[in-house]
Amino acid sequence: MNVAGKHYRAVWLDGPQVWMIDQNRLPFYFEIRNAPTHVETARCIREMTVRGAGVIGAAGGFGMAQAFLEDEGREHVDRARETLESTRPTAQTLYYAVRRVHRRGVEAGPEAAAREAQAIADEEIGFCREIGRHAEPLIRDGMKILTHCNAGWLASVDYGSVTAPIYRAKERGKKVFVWVSETRPRAQGGRLTAWELRNEGVPHAVISDTVPASLMARGEVDVVMVGCDRVAANGDVANKVGTLDLAILAKEFGIPFYVAAPPSAMDFNCPSGEGIPIEERPQDEILYQAGLTDEGRVERIRVVSPGSGAFNPAFDMTPARYITGIITPEGVFKPGDFPRPR
Amino acid sequence: MNVAGKHYRAVWLDGPQVWMIDQNRLPFYFEIRNAPTHVETARCIREMTVRGAGVIGAAGGFGMAQAFLEDEGREHVDRARETLESTRPTAQTLYYAVRRVHRRGVEAGPEAAAREAQAIADEEIGFCREIGRHAEPLIRDGMKILTHCNAGWLASVDYGSVTAPIYRAKERGKKVFVWVSETRPRAQGGRLTAWELRNEGVPHAVISDTVPASLMARGEVDVVMVGCDRVAANGDVANKVGTLDLAILAKEFGIPFYVAAPPSAMDFNCPSGEGIPIEERPQDEILYQAGLTDEGRVERIRVVSPGSGAFNPAFDMTPARYITGIITPEGVFKPGDFPRPR
Repeated sequence: MNVAGKHYRAVWLDGPQVWMIDQNRLPFYFEIRNAPTHVETARCIREMTVRGAGVIGAAGGFGMAQAFLEDEGREHVDRARETLESTRPTAQTLYYAVRRVHRRGVEAGPEAAAREAQAIADEEIGFCREIGRHAEPLIRDGMKILTHCNAGWLASVDYGSVTAPIYRAKERGKKVFVWVSETRPRAQGGRLTAWELRNEGVPHAVISDTVPASLMARGEVDVVMVGCDRVAANGDVANKVGTLDLAILAKEFGIPFYVAAPPSAMDFNCPSGEGIPIEERPQDEILYQAGLTDEGRVERIRVVSPGSGAFNPAFDMTPARYITGIITPEGVFKPGDFPRPR
Repeated sequence: MNVAGKHYRAVWLDGPQVWMIDQNRLPFYFEIRNAPTHVETARCIREMTVRGAGVIGAAGGFGMAQAFLEDEGREHVDRARETLESTRPTAQTLYYAVRRVHRRGVEAGPEAAAREAQAIADEEIGFCREIGRHAEPLIRDGMKILTHCNAGWLASVDYGSVTAPIYRAKERGKKVFVWVSETRPRAQGGRLTAWELRNEGVPHAVISDTVPASLMARGEVDVVMVGCDRVAANGDVANKVGTLDLAILAKEFGIPFYVAAPPSAMDFNCPSGEGIPIEERPQDEILYQAGLTDEGRVERIRVVSPGSGAFNPAFDMTPARYITGIITPEGVFKPGDFPRPR
């Protein structure tokens, strides 16, 4: 993805250091941050300097490679694996990448671990490109697409899972319009997806998370497309909280509801969504919001009445019955019918 | 309603002046503001210094009385009526009150107009008390109630329509818990309802507007209760945007969905919800948010990526088929079956 004419990935490994776009500073500041150790990389995942299933996975893999490169023995890398896996509980990509790099490093050493982590990041980008190829025909000329949270390149190393077909449709001359749900509490829709779409020149408008039903009732939504953090074997999907709300509304209005899912998000060991742990995050994410003052400072303000508390589950689980199709790099499948790993 | 030991209404008339709690300053500052002329009262309604259907109606009636008290002839009061009616398009209470005071003032002069406006405000409070009496039995001990926006005393002069039964249930020793949806963009749930419930000592938690479906799926919502801005003859309801989303979700999960409606909100001239105008408000309400900095200043910050726009319908329309019952001062009725005015 290009930012001001220069190509960036959302996260990358350079020697023993992990570099990343600081997503907590976007869209008001574009800053690159580095994590010199696996401990710092874990902190960046936990604090959501990087976020989004694909990027959490890539960063986790890079962090695991860092632990091998730190060269302090088997116990060190085993502890590092625990540290990295404990950062965020819901995204399957994290476990997928950390375990794969750990296994490779134990077998073949630090340099092999680093190459494996790099391969995972590269594969994630390839997945998005293939998802874009398969999903682009779902987008007809003139369609209005509703998306939630950020399943763009910032969540997927590069290209994006939900954004890939949108960019591809636009490249092929189709007129597209994207409704971007704000996605409170962290507002990744209003902050990140809007920023990406504006950089790419895709027409869009941000809506409050209270608006989807009335847009659907007015016939203003042709398709809903979201990403995912984990897909169970039966096709149940964990994704950003609010996804279940949109899936139920889409079904009520007869609007197709698609989930874009790279293979790294598939958890065939998890028979149904009931088994997916849902992360509960600090209530301050609801009570406070950060943004840009008129003077150009980023300031944190309290937006909820002082003295009141909040409940903040970060994800929800959408049962397969609400999902029209799961878009994978190998094609679009009915939930539960997608191909098992070879 | 008591604030720091002193009783307040949300809006009141004192001689020729309208006084009101500035709801744009809540919950961070409790400030009383006065409107010395009907023009200023109209501005306060438009700028949402006062908001909520009941209070918009009361303020509109008081403003109409002010126009008569200004004593500048028939043309002046007719123009004032237009000014007041043009402030907000969706709440039926506004037209109800303005027309009633206008009619009375034309018949019987300024003092009669002022008494009529006062009667409307007093009736609104009586309506809430009766709604509380009828709806309290719907709340069983231990129930978790989800509400949206603010249908409390700040929206209803005093007592509140949705809050009345909650306060009454609590007084009668029932354990209640309220989920308060933030209600972006203006966050009347997180700012006003949370503030009211905290003042009254009612246990509650604020949630993002993305959380209702997952709460319902977890069995954490026993009943949904919302207010309304207008009810059509067939029982379709216009209320704060996001109400339709909650009604559809409640139906999907088999959760009762009630609307509290004073007679001033009933529009028997409007056969169905299709005829209710939906106000579209400035996109800045989505792009910016105001709140309290750590230093105690109220600051406005941009929360959406700069350069992106927004779409901001303030209300939505919930078809009668999603509504379990409409709670009126005369009892709880199936939508469309409520009694016509005598």
